[in-house]
Amino acid sequence: MPEEFNLQCPIPIGSYANITLAHGGGGRLTNRLIDTLFGSSFTNPELDERGDGAALDLPDGGKIAFSTDSYVVRPLFFPGGDIGTLAVNGTANDLAMCGAQPRWLSCGFILEEGVPIETVERVVRSMAEAAKTAGVTLVTGDTKVVDRGKGDGIYVNTAGIGTIEHTQRILPSSIRDGDAIILSGDIGRHGMAIMAVREGLEFETTIESDCAPVWPAVKRLLDGGIEIHCLRDITRGGLATALCELSEKSGLTISISESSISARDDVRGACEILGLDPMYVANEGRFIAFVPAGQAEAALELLRLEQVSESPVVIGKAVKGQTGLVTLKSLIGTERLIDMLSGEQLPRIC
Amino acid sequence: MPEEFNLQCPIPIGSYANITLAHGGGGRLTNRLIDTLFGSSFTNPELDERGDGAALDLPDGGKIAFSTDSYVVRPLFFPGGDIGTLAVNGTANDLAMCGAQPRWLSCGFILEEGVPIETVERVVRSMAEAAKTAGVTLVTGDTKVVDRGKGDGIYVNTAGIGTIEHTQRILPSSIRDGDAIILSGDIGRHGMAIMAVREGLEFETTIESDCAPVWPAVKRLLDGGIEIHCLRDITRGGLATALCELSEKSGLTISISESSISARDDVRGACEILGLDPMYVANEGRFIAFVPAGQAEAALELLRLEQVSESPVVIGKAVKGQTGLVTLKSLIGTERLIDMLSGEQLPRIC
Repeated sequence: MPEEFNLQCPIPIGSYANITLAHGGGGRLTNRLIDTLFGSSFTNPELDERGDGAALDLPDGGKIAFSTDSYVVRPLFFPGGDIGTLAVNGTANDLAMCGAQPRWLSCGFILEEGVPIETVERVVRSMAEAAKTAGVTLVTGDTKVVDRGKGDGIYVNTAGIGTIEHTQRILPSSIRDGDAIILSGDIGRHGMAIMAVREGLEFETTIESDCAPVWPAVKRLLDGGIEIHCLRDITRGGLATALCELSEKSGLTISISESSISARDDVRGACEILGLDPMYVANEGRFIAFVPAGQAEAALELLRLEQVSESPVVIGKAVKGQTGLVTLKSLIGTERLIDMLSGEQLPRIC
Repeated sequence: MPEEFNLQCPIPIGSYANITLAHGGGGRLTNRLIDTLFGSSFTNPELDERGDGAALDLPDGGKIAFSTDSYVVRPLFFPGGDIGTLAVNGTANDLAMCGAQPRWLSCGFILEEGVPIETVERVVRSMAEAAKTAGVTLVTGDTKVVDRGKGDGIYVNTAGIGTIEHTQRILPSSIRDGDAIILSGDIGRHGMAIMAVREGLEFETTIESDCAPVWPAVKRLLDGGIEIHCLRDITRGGLATALCELSEKSGLTISISESSISARDDVRGACEILGLDPMYVANEGRFIAFVPAGQAEAALELLRLEQVSESPVVIGKAVKGQTGLVTLKSLIGTERLIDMLSGEQLPRIC
């Protein structure tokens, strides 16, 4: 058997012989599974970058981005969105994180026998609406049905193609010593919107998912001449896990300041009740951008022009140091290490 | 609500309020579901063509094809392939059916909690091997885990991008009066390989799936200067359903001759035991090509040069007549109508 199929794992996939929910949580175990299982069988420059999508060179010189996500969120409908809006915005946002304008989506449905057709209709309608808002066209699809008890209503996969019409290389490996890290807004809304429904938590206000297309914000940065080194949407595993991944991939230490990171009071409240840290909670309309420190102010001004990124902040910087090291300066001035999400916090959040 | 979201169905989705296995069978009900539910919410020129994938024009003038399929086959492993080889070849073949050279794949796994990691490894390895054989690169992926009992081991979605480097318009609407219909080989092997395992049928020989990449055969036709009007791989719903779909989409009558269509003896035997008609059984390495009658002989010669299409035959022609009418001249000389697969024949065949 050729060497590239060798699956001897440099890091064990946890100590598990079977797949656990934590392997899908977006944290440490997901990363190990991807690195060892998929990374060793499929190795190529595009995949090895571990961007949110792959940037591809076409034979005629054009450049596109390609990304995919499956959506298994439960419940299917939640405040601020549903599995359909997630499936459109999630994949479109992954393309935007490659600096690509989201253009086309594919859609694969896996339906469980017995799911009401009306439920499928609702999801399809909201996908159509979300696609219109995001400016993407759904051009190809597939529908499969599995036996009752072998699914969970509706699973959706979308893949997307975006066009890259600039020459910047927006990649984890482009992050440079001294880069400022900009966060596009408050955190934790998507995850807590879902958890509040699941746990039956009630607040004076309803926590709504932040699910939204972020391409307009990225376009502002590109059109405004900002040198973007890296973009990452902070979905499964939250802000903390995204920072850890990018520190590992760039080989730089990341230092952030807790006081710069905001979350709504109801989100913080729900997190406290459930014993969760907002830093690890999933978002669906938030991203971080790595830009040269000298351009940070200009980037903030550009981001403020779009509703999806109207309250951006510089949360820290990337500096020479240790690979995989993320430090947080807390509100009381102490410094602590930030690790990836480990184990399972919020299963099936997207 | 905007008019495009109106879901009043011109044809009812059967008389069903809930999704049934037949909605995923690839036959009449699948077509109705797609036409009414998805087609009414998502209408655009690319999707409305109902090709095996969508042909997309890039801003710089380049052309690509985009396609997706989810795979829910059971068992996961079967003679001649597994869910991994299916997921690679199925999507790569859909691209080839657009006249595109398959280049890049995305892969979304939905894993069930508790599935042995070793099983996932086997699938991943065979995907890697199949991708190598098919000449495609897996560049981006996603992994989700669902709770025990909410999946069935492993579901895989792949989407694919191919490059179109010719100016032919290979589409159902390009089929012309008088076109010869070429079938690339014998039929029924994939479906009966799966059914034989499920039903515990034993024959002197093992029926193996025909799962294989068909792009080399399409490339021969393109390079050989054949004017290809339409291509269609005959997967779910089999040869019969593909012909019915293309008759509906082209507005032409299709006449085929039973004597020209071959199936292996063990495939025919298994079909007889299970009461199935090979015309409706899924294939994963067979396709039909519509070409001008005058080029049919040349096309056959070119196809014979590739192993995947070494025994091609002209099975009939498209002629002016009635939309959606497919007639078969039987072995004893009578003529009968061919309809789409109706109801459920082989659930979860791919």
